[in-house]
Amino acid sequence: MYRQSISSERFIEIPAPVRAEYRRWRPTPLFRASRLEQALDTPAHIYFKYEGTSPSGSHKMNTALAQAYYYGRSGVREMVTGTGAGQWGTALAMACHPYDVACTVFMVRSSYEQKPYRGTLMRLNGAEVVPSPSTRTEVGRAALRADPESPGTLGIANAEAIEYANGRKEARFSIGSGENHVLLHQTVIGEEALLQMGLAGEFPDIVIGAMGAGSNFAGLTFPFYRASLTGNTGTRFLAVEPDACPKMTRGGYMMDYTDYSGVTPAVKMYTLGHTFTAYHIHAGGLRYHGAAPIVSAMYHAGMVEAISYPQTRVFESGAAFARTEGLVPAPESAHAVAAAIDEAVRAREERTERVILAGLSGHGLLDLGAYESHLSGETVDVAPTDEEIKASLRLIESL
Amino acid sequence: MYRQSISSERFIEIPAPVRAEYRRWRPTPLFRASRLEQALDTPAHIYFKYEGTSPSGSHKMNTALAQAYYYGRSGVREMVTGTGAGQWGTALAMACHPYDVACTVFMVRSSYEQKPYRGTLMRLNGAEVVPSPSTRTEVGRAALRADPESPGTLGIANAEAIEYANGRKEARFSIGSGENHVLLHQTVIGEEALLQMGLAGEFPDIVIGAMGAGSNFAGLTFPFYRASLTGNTGTRFLAVEPDACPKMTRGGYMMDYTDYSGVTPAVKMYTLGHTFTAYHIHAGGLRYHGAAPIVSAMYHAGMVEAISYPQTRVFESGAAFARTEGLVPAPESAHAVAAAIDEAVRAREERTERVILAGLSGHGLLDLGAYESHLSGETVDVAPTDEEIKASLRLIESL
Repeated sequence: MYRQSISSERFIEIPAPVRAEYRRWRPTPLFRASRLEQALDTPAHIYFKYEGTSPSGSHKMNTALAQAYYYGRSGVREMVTGTGAGQWGTALAMACHPYDVACTVFMVRSSYEQKPYRGTLMRLNGAEVVPSPSTRTEVGRAALRADPESPGTLGIANAEAIEYANGRKEARFSIGSGENHVLLHQTVIGEEALLQMGLAGEFPDIVIGAMGAGSNFAGLTFPFYRASLTGNTGTRFLAVEPDACPKMTRGGYMMDYTDYSGVTPAVKMYTLGHTFTAYHIHAGGLRYHGAAPIVSAMYHAGMVEAISYPQTRVFESGAAFARTEGLVPAPESAHAVAAAIDEAVRAREERTERVILAGLSGHGLLDLGAYESHLSGETVDVAPTDEEIKASLRLIESL
Repeated sequence: MYRQSISSERFIEIPAPVRAEYRRWRPTPLFRASRLEQALDTPAHIYFKYEGTSPSGSHKMNTALAQAYYYGRSGVREMVTGTGAGQWGTALAMACHPYDVACTVFMVRSSYEQKPYRGTLMRLNGAEVVPSPSTRTEVGRAALRADPESPGTLGIANAEAIEYANGRKEARFSIGSGENHVLLHQTVIGEEALLQMGLAGEFPDIVIGAMGAGSNFAGLTFPFYRASLTGNTGTRFLAVEPDACPKMTRGGYMMDYTDYSGVTPAVKMYTLGHTFTAYHIHAGGLRYHGAAPIVSAMYHAGMVEAISYPQTRVFESGAAFARTEGLVPAPESAHAVAAAIDEAVRAREERTERVILAGLSGHGLLDLGAYESHLSGETVDVAPTDEEIKASLRLIESL
């Protein structure tokens, strides 16, 4: 994995056993959202690349299988990870099984309690699920001493997973986004979409992806970025983050740690600071404090744009999508839907055609509680103040 | 629909607009469960035809779209139905939208409360969801007068839907299983599977389907029945019902109503009596009192076999399937998985090869609460006594 992270090869082949696994659901569908276009009365063509048909219901399965394969082949017998909303933990649990690799997932306690079915799904797939903070690790015990009712954070869960894995023979910590090798594994999404758009005889004017740590965004956009340079297409690339965690639109481009406790090497990235705790939003997968170094560098160089959305707009868009296309997007994916709708409306207002491609990274069937909050008007918009962001960034100025 | 129900044509063409809708997810996957075979150490080849990739997550979408199309074309502006577990209500809600047909769903109150996300999913797709018994109809008000805390039954919900539809202009009652036209619409499953098995170069020795009212079972098996006659293959056909609602294995072959209140015409079928109320099991979709008249006639003639399973066995099988194949079956579908596993184990014991095809009618992502009960050992087996069945059948002896 490390060799993949520092490779200067343009292409790295997907191992045959991983390709055999992918074949269970890949290629994933690319579809044109004709009914959404009709409802918006837009001249734009809106395409979605849909990763929700994977066994775990999201794109996370792509890297989970690759990691389980590589680690399993290297003699690792147990994978340990932290998960927030649970998409990643589910994918890793499912991926470990075919390689006879055990799986232990530290799951943020508030998510564990709010989304009990995520835990069920992981246990059904043979994983051990530990609400974090736990008493299994020093990090967890310290967090519990400080606050016995601690709801946990992804930072703490990952720190627990790292400590736990380090203390066990043949166990390794595994991570679901941000790192170069994870971004690489996800480019299968964009490579497929590139061929599929070719079959449709179109090339996107804009490619849109939701932005957590960046693996979903990079997976879809990077292959199109390469093709756009070759074809000189002038295609735009748009990362969509939540107002509650605006690392690209309001963060700093600085050296920072990728985990809460600071045991990982510091990297240069757009960040809100590794101790930043985003206000609760339903799109738990987008609450990570930093943007992957490669995506950050591209954003800094103007190769990529970014925008943030309040969650009420996001759920309005997700519900509109469900009504027209009959498919409920995960709250994370609904961020890309919201931006795609805005682009399509702009196309109508400007009376110009344009081809929009957006990533639908997963389904929202385990997030219907969040949609119920939206339908009953209980969803509120949250965002950090400038002062909160400044204070958090001040803590990493000296790194 | 009535013309389809009494047609003597061997094939009735699927209208082009319905085929266009089907194309969004059809053909559905047929896959060989190689890992399950490995885990069972069986010489049998086990194939599953999986309907969970439909927008609503089950086979119910096939007939929902056909009905919405035919009714919409005939000027119907509102479809009204009753739903138990919610699979059917979800499918109809999603199907009505493209035809601009409104959708009102009376949902059994106990399910409405135990599976709140089913209601969310229907509302997200523009349907109005009414917990039944309700105050909207005379049937509902009577049920509430008798028991203000009534948890409802599918019989009452359907009776409410019929009364409500009859009282509204341009509204029609729609039904999700049992009737001939519904069975017909579902045969797209078996027709596809027939071609797909052909691509795999195999023909099943046994075809297995879960049995509610019969649309899932008939949809998969009927085309194979036709082909088995032509090819003289000696293929067996096995309907799997829950111990809690054993209409085929322990019911009578008698004239009976298909709804609780007896407003529908009586038909000859295997039944436990239209007032029979099955004990609560998680596979709510299999709690219907009767078997479709065509399936009943075939069973009576020995063309079809039947077996019943206790739900703990069903959930063990569903969990084993999730662990090996990474896909959680709906509790209803897990009945077919249980029977497929038993067949495969028998093949191992008898040291004979055999080809097993089972229907996986839907995913269980909205039923993870039921799997959680299984994992924590809280699921119990229930079945009616002989006396209870006799008493229920006595009430329809004079029909």
